[in-house]
Amino acid sequence: MQVGELGEFALIARLQRSLQGPLRPRVVQGIGDDCAVVRAAPGMELLLTVDTQEESVHFRREWSTPQDIGWRCLAVNVSDIAAMAGMPLGALVALSLPQALDVAFVDALYEGMRALAQDYDCPIIGGNISKAPESLTVTITVLGEVVAGQSVYRSGAQVGDEIWVTGDLGGAKAGLEVLLHPHDVAEVQTEYVLSRYRRPRPRLREAQYLRQYGMLHSLLDISDGLSSDLTHICEASGVGAQLYAERIPLHREVRQVASVLHLDPLAFALHGGEDFELCLTAPPGHLASLQPTFEQQFGCALSQVGTIQAGAGVTLRLPDGPQVPVRAQGYDHFRAPGTAEAHS
Amino acid sequence: MQVGELGEFALIARLQRSLQGPLRPRVVQGIGDDCAVVRAAPGMELLLTVDTQEESVHFRREWSTPQDIGWRCLAVNVSDIAAMAGMPLGALVALSLPQALDVAFVDALYEGMRALAQDYDCPIIGGNISKAPESLTVTITVLGEVVAGQSVYRSGAQVGDEIWVTGDLGGAKAGLEVLLHPHDVAEVQTEYVLSRYRRPRPRLREAQYLRQYGMLHSLLDISDGLSSDLTHICEASGVGAQLYAERIPLHREVRQVASVLHLDPLAFALHGGEDFELCLTAPPGHLASLQPTFEQQFGCALSQVGTIQAGAGVTLRLPDGPQVPVRAQGYDHFRAPGTAEAHS
Repeated sequence: MQVGELGEFALIARLQRSLQGPLRPRVVQGIGDDCAVVRAAPGMELLLTVDTQEESVHFRREWSTPQDIGWRCLAVNVSDIAAMAGMPLGALVALSLPQALDVAFVDALYEGMRALAQDYDCPIIGGNISKAPESLTVTITVLGEVVAGQSVYRSGAQVGDEIWVTGDLGGAKAGLEVLLHPHDVAEVQTEYVLSRYRRPRPRLREAQYLRQYGMLHSLLDISDGLSSDLTHICEASGVGAQLYAERIPLHREVRQVASVLHLDPLAFALHGGEDFELCLTAPPGHLASLQPTFEQQFGCALSQVGTIQAGAGVTLRLPDGPQVPVRAQGYDHFRAPGTAEAHS
Repeated sequence: MQVGELGEFALIARLQRSLQGPLRPRVVQGIGDDCAVVRAAPGMELLLTVDTQEESVHFRREWSTPQDIGWRCLAVNVSDIAAMAGMPLGALVALSLPQALDVAFVDALYEGMRALAQDYDCPIIGGNISKAPESLTVTITVLGEVVAGQSVYRSGAQVGDEIWVTGDLGGAKAGLEVLLHPHDVAEVQTEYVLSRYRRPRPRLREAQYLRQYGMLHSLLDISDGLSSDLTHICEASGVGAQLYAERIPLHREVRQVASVLHLDPLAFALHGGEDFELCLTAPPGHLASLQPTFEQQFGCALSQVGTIQAGAGVTLRLPDGPQVPVRAQGYDHFRAPGTAEAHS
């Protein structure tokens, strides 16, 4: 059955049923009235973020299952809550649906969102459904909270800070390249990079831990690419940054995919984006002592990749010595994506 | 200049500048980081609502100025906060923009949103910009708050309650008909109904007042049309409703426009939607005593239009006695809009 046959109100009722379950203690009213209602907690600050994922711009139905798309659409928003070192309270899902879309597709989309919602304790508490002229669009808002004054901003980086990242970088971009050039990568393993593209995992609990123990000066999630996102930190903080090429964490599959495609894996890491790892800065020496416990607790690497310095802009120090400027080449919606020429 | 030429980050910086001004005391961080940050207040409940307005579905550029469109997109969301008897804290604006759209259009769209934001004390504190494949889409989330336990839901209507509405109904639908058939209405005044369509005014302070003094049992805003929205109240509350045809408030221009188009003005009021007036129920006799003060204070009519009764469904009592069932014919995104046959 198509959504056009089912109708708006029947579709809303159907989704409402699929989301039923015991209300979380903080959720006073979920789907079904003019607003969702959530109990505020004293001494907290509220976090609010919104992100749109558009068919053929952010995802393609032939590259991901509807469950993957649902997961990803909610993940990118929960990641913005992680990027402030907060915890989510709930999400609103605004769907623009083509009339001919199968209801089964919408069900599966919600199945993916529910899985993420459960893993990250971010219940879907409301939303909106409207008719899309052509392609599917998913706009999700997440409400979160953080102890007042404990949000970590982009603007707090200080000269001398170490720059650290969680996990590894370039995987989502490598996964995208696999989907774009399936025949060229037939000989290499791609399971990891495909999952990085299809099912990003927000670093929510990791960010909590780092805020609590890490003396963070600045924090964000790497959505546009390290080159762009570190530039955001530098501009907001009035500082510059130096990256060490050999320290940027790359997964084995990222190197292999780049190799068979004759591309530079470091460019994937610097400009690829969508890994949704954390980038943070902290005073010298502080995070090194935390690193072993962190990596053991979360099964996630923590790597120093550079240093904040006076001035402006981001430079890359190559293993053999020379330094080259890194242009912010992350994804700009209205420009062509950057090419792989970071240190050419 | 087109948005494709300016680029995403320059456009965000431009909009951020246009929204600058002193931060409201409750807004800790506006546009510019991963999340907006708002201070929570103890003893409050948070309200969260989202709505999508899509070009050619909800608005047309030839029917409204970009300022009107911006006003309207934010108004429909603030109206959902009014519908819970809350007050707004801030809004997130997610835009999907075609690359060829003029930057001047986006500026004007924001001008309209800023005007509404100022009138209703609902600052724009964040958002998202992405590339639209074709047409312009505006998805807005509004965060609000209400004293804990003071939200007024759809589900509280009780048998014997009076049904009241603010203002007058059918104006937005009449305005839409004027835009659809400009030549047929050349002889009648249309200023009021056009403004009802283009610049709806959420009943925010009116809802505050009615919550405080009106002993409200149920409340919502009339966005889909009285027939649909009252059906929502009835279904959520497990009751039925009777409307009195002669008491439904119609503006003179609504009657005139309907007359020259040979349509039923009552059908505009029952099924037209988008007036964003309030519909509420309260115990018998309670609101009549409040009515003169309310009308004087807000310059806005308050009319009893019916009674909640046992059973299910909505009926309409005609002036000469007979009662006819009213089908919920408000706007369904995936169905054709209802026709004017409410009591035929």
